[in-house]
Amino acid sequence: MYLEHISSPEDVRALPESALPALVSEVRTAIVESTSVTGGHTASNLATVELTVALHRVFETPRDKIVFDVSHQSYAHKMLTGRAAAYLDPARYGEVSGFSNPSESEHDLFSMGHTSTSVSLACGLASARDLAGEKYDVVAVIGDGSLSGGLAFEGLDNAAELGSGLIIVVNDNEWSIAPNHGGIYRSLAELRASGGTSPDNVFRALGLDYRYLEDGHDVSALVKALSELRGTDHPAVLHIHTEKGHGYAPAAANPEGWHHAVPFQVDTGVIRPGTASHPADENYANVTGALLMDWMGTDSRVVAVNAATPYIMGFTPELRQLAGPRFVDVGIAEEHAVSYVCGLARGGARPVLGIYATFLQRAYDQLWHDLCLNDLSVTILVFGASVFGTSDVTHLGFFDIPMLGSLPRLTYLAPTCIEEYLDMLSWSIEHEGGPVAIRVPVAEGVVSRPDFVRADDYAHGCEVLQEGSDVALLALGDFLPLGEKIADSLAEHGFHATLVNPRLATTPDKDLLGRLADGHRVIVTLEDGVLDGGFGERCARELAADDVRVLCYGLPRAYVDRYEPAELLARCSLTVEGVTNDALRALRS
Amino acid sequence: MYLEHISSPEDVRALPESALPALVSEVRTAIVESTSVTGGHTASNLATVELTVALHRVFETPRDKIVFDVSHQSYAHKMLTGRAAAYLDPARYGEVSGFSNPSESEHDLFSMGHTSTSVSLACGLASARDLAGEKYDVVAVIGDGSLSGGLAFEGLDNAAELGSGLIIVVNDNEWSIAPNHGGIYRSLAELRASGGTSPDNVFRALGLDYRYLEDGHDVSALVKALSELRGTDHPAVLHIHTEKGHGYAPAAANPEGWHHAVPFQVDTGVIRPGTASHPADENYANVTGALLMDWMGTDSRVVAVNAATPYIMGFTPELRQLAGPRFVDVGIAEEHAVSYVCGLARGGARPVLGIYATFLQRAYDQLWHDLCLNDLSVTILVFGASVFGTSDVTHLGFFDIPMLGSLPRLTYLAPTCIEEYLDMLSWSIEHEGGPVAIRVPVAEGVVSRPDFVRADDYAHGCEVLQEGSDVALLALGDFLPLGEKIADSLAEHGFHATLVNPRLATTPDKDLLGRLADGHRVIVTLEDGVLDGGFGERCARELAADDVRVLCYGLPRAYVDRYEPAELLARCSLTVEGVTNDALRALRS
Repeated sequence: MYLEHISSPEDVRALPESALPALVSEVRTAIVESTSVTGGHTASNLATVELTVALHRVFETPRDKIVFDVSHQSYAHKMLTGRAAAYLDPARYGEVSGFSNPSESEHDLFSMGHTSTSVSLACGLASARDLAGEKYDVVAVIGDGSLSGGLAFEGLDNAAELGSGLIIVVNDNEWSIAPNHGGIYRSLAELRASGGTSPDNVFRALGLDYRYLEDGHDVSALVKALSELRGTDHPAVLHIHTEKGHGYAPAAANPEGWHHAVPFQVDTGVIRPGTASHPADENYANVTGALLMDWMGTDSRVVAVNAATPYIMGFTPELRQLAGPRFVDVGIAEEHAVSYVCGLARGGARPVLGIYATFLQRAYDQLWHDLCLNDLSVTILVFGASVFGTSDVTHLGFFDIPMLGSLPRLTYLAPTCIEEYLDMLSWSIEHEGGPVAIRVPVAEGVVSRPDFVRADDYAHGCEVLQEGSDVALLALGDFLPLGEKIADSLAEHGFHATLVNPRLATTPDKDLLGRLADGHRVIVTLEDGVLDGGFGERCARELAADDVRVLCYGLPRAYVDRYEPAELLARCSLTVEGVTNDALRALRS
Repeated sequence: MYLEHISSPEDVRALPESALPALVSEVRTAIVESTSVTGGHTASNLATVELTVALHRVFETPRDKIVFDVSHQSYAHKMLTGRAAAYLDPARYGEVSGFSNPSESEHDLFSMGHTSTSVSLACGLASARDLAGEKYDVVAVIGDGSLSGGLAFEGLDNAAELGSGLIIVVNDNEWSIAPNHGGIYRSLAELRASGGTSPDNVFRALGLDYRYLEDGHDVSALVKALSELRGTDHPAVLHIHTEKGHGYAPAAANPEGWHHAVPFQVDTGVIRPGTASHPADENYANVTGALLMDWMGTDSRVVAVNAATPYIMGFTPELRQLAGPRFVDVGIAEEHAVSYVCGLARGGARPVLGIYATFLQRAYDQLWHDLCLNDLSVTILVFGASVFGTSDVTHLGFFDIPMLGSLPRLTYLAPTCIEEYLDMLSWSIEHEGGPVAIRVPVAEGVVSRPDFVRADDYAHGCEVLQEGSDVALLALGDFLPLGEKIADSLAEHGFHATLVNPRLATTPDKDLLGRLADGHRVIVTLEDGVLDGGFGERCARELAADDVRVLCYGLPRAYVDRYEPAELLARCSLTVEGVTNDALRALRS
């Protein structure tokens, strides 16, 4: 076996060329074996094995610089840069992160997990090199799926003006997470079909040198093509054709399903027995898709929009087929998604955009400038905004309340249970009062509260679950169950607390706060999000001139990686015991 | 005169074709005459007069929909849609806003002022039309300068997949605000030079139909070209060549200087005597450019970066020439600008990015994902973040503290005077502790405090200007003079207040707050920004468990348009009298 003896890329370069196919095969097997246990980005990594071996054969990192876009395809890179054991030894699976990570290796330049950034980052590296008068190669590896993001275009457009060397490998496996969307993909298809000779060439149109390699799984051909570009004095694109899931039949047959795999049986590709595939998330996805299909049946204005992750809102391939033009996937293009729904709303439609909180960050200005400034009636479903969402540092979703909290006119709802979520979603579709965002609950299980108190107008007011005294608990969204437990705990200490579902994440109910300030000595806010700029701070300001103590609980303004939710919450005193003790102490002081 | 009789686009269509050149001439004169008094986007509007007349000759708004990108070129459109008097009658100058505005007219579809949004908005309008089964034309008018923004690419890429009619007029006047940057401009130049036949065609490469018209000032040719596209069943680009500043010699000779003109004498183009051209802003621009040039002379790592507004950081054409490759203008591409400086920093350079607060919104995710997550040593100079910045609703700059306030690892400094600003800028360039943003002061004049207290490390601590008791005033950044006046006013009432320059806009000094909570009964925060998610709220949270009253003063979470700063501040009780009275009341209660 070669792989287990590779401790750095130098070892790759020291191998005889004849050994490369075997190395490729070993890397591929390690990807399948390790992700069959841990889950992960199986299919995209299988597509880039030969490319990665060739890159480390030709370039000399860390002196030369390679930036992998999104970096969810960097497993082979990790194996060849001293981290093979984390993929070969089941006891060490999970030791390295699923994304590039400078704290793991000097061969990883950036911590990254959002798409379309690599060319811009590489432009910066190349400029820094030129300003320092040094000589080395800078390579950006970008997938076709990432090309629909506007930042990738900005990067390519600026790369053309660099005036020095930069290599851009376009790894074209014909897929985003789901199928690609956008005119550029027809152009890429024509380039593939014509062996790179089609006249409609977006790279050349931007002024970039362009080369095409049809077999992106021919390691010798890749070595040759990259060697020819080594030391280039101008920006050049190498467009290679790969297969998502290459070399593992189940993944190659269903690239969308295998984009991010849950643990599976290697021989069949079937999910391992006992594997929970985010059941709560799936539940919310399914009910969202079902409710939107109902709405489409009765209101011809309703249209569902998504940016390359249709599954989060329950739009399976089957449902997409049924919805026809009433479901639009704009591809990886979050800025466009938000401006597009603004156009839809102005044109009389009622759009519902489903998006992960971490990716909504990419459309901040469109939220401010196109949506809220124009006061358009759009619903945005914000997924994964929770400590229980993705725990990779690159994809944290719990910065949403501060991000959205200063946008004028936006109603940001935090439902506490599945029933309230669906009611708020239906309400938002009929609401004529401007934009509504809904923080789709995320938790370890689906919370059901069939007796929740409906509102005729969710833009105002809150739900008081229990009237008490001394202590009031404002438990936002999916932290309501935590609030209930704290109330029970306080009751054991003789305090009958008031318990409130605030409903609105960014606009505290001033009337309520005024009333609470009178009958309570301590007010506790609980939010599943970053405290700085969040819900609790807003309550603290509203109450700052009153004679009441406010204790705010939430998550730290910090990057946390692959954390255990319970541990992180405990660190923030976000436990029944922690909050109870603090509240009792404040009551006694 | 035709123009004064045009009360709606119907009147344009009713004119004999032979009258159009005269109408064009009248509109052009009105642009020059009115902006000579009010200032405005003279040059870009002069370029689009014939196009706008032709658009309203061919299409029937409001049934047909026209979206003007940025909308700073929509003066002619306003004149032809019932608002001519605001440009013809000096008594009514300024009656309409400088951007499209749905509250003014049903012919204006969006309030907008940021670039690159029009194609995405138009896609949404077209989809809404198709879903409703209606028939009308949707037209996006986008300038060449706006094409470098990634959102424009996302829009074009998605337009190609619309499957129905959309007309995209590319108004190519060869300029952004400053000269264009990016590979696409070479491609546009080749298209112009070849009469639209050059093979490197980014529009065709995206799958869009493409037509070229060389003389964008020939109203008959424009009418003919647009008529041919009327009712199109597929997305089509009409690329027209215009001249920025056309028909007014001073503007045509200096398109950058005339992008946004201050009041001028029509016969000469010379600035009117007595016109103040933002002297404070210019001062900060000049000192920024001068200091950065000094740094470049002594530290070869320093590089200044900007996105299409080089003048804000003092980089005049002369200074750009001197700086050579150490000044980089990436064009209108804010996302790229932030990712690019991240690459520069990782490559060992020390980048300083200058950007307007309102445009920094476009790079929120890059700040979170590329910059702060990677803890890179980059300086960002945030301009116009103040109630005294641009008062157009589309360009408000005072949402910056909430926007940046939840980003981990970011040090956001708010200097109080020009001396402190320069010291902080120099400190940030040598600082190895991750990203630093600096809120460049904006006020009615430059504040000078030669005796300000320097810090060796601006990442921590604050400056206490006056130690007192009972009341503490935390006066952030350019509101320090207001804090001083309030302290004086309180002294007249017998209270010797503590006065603090907090220095840090998003991270209150906990030690200080702890000390203040002991010796003071009322703590006042003053910030030149939106309260929701701002500095005051953070202080209120820190102090919420203490026995002290906190009064937070700042701006409302609201869209305000063309306001008078003093009026807006008075509405927020942000006056010496208002704060003094509130503080006295709180002290007595």
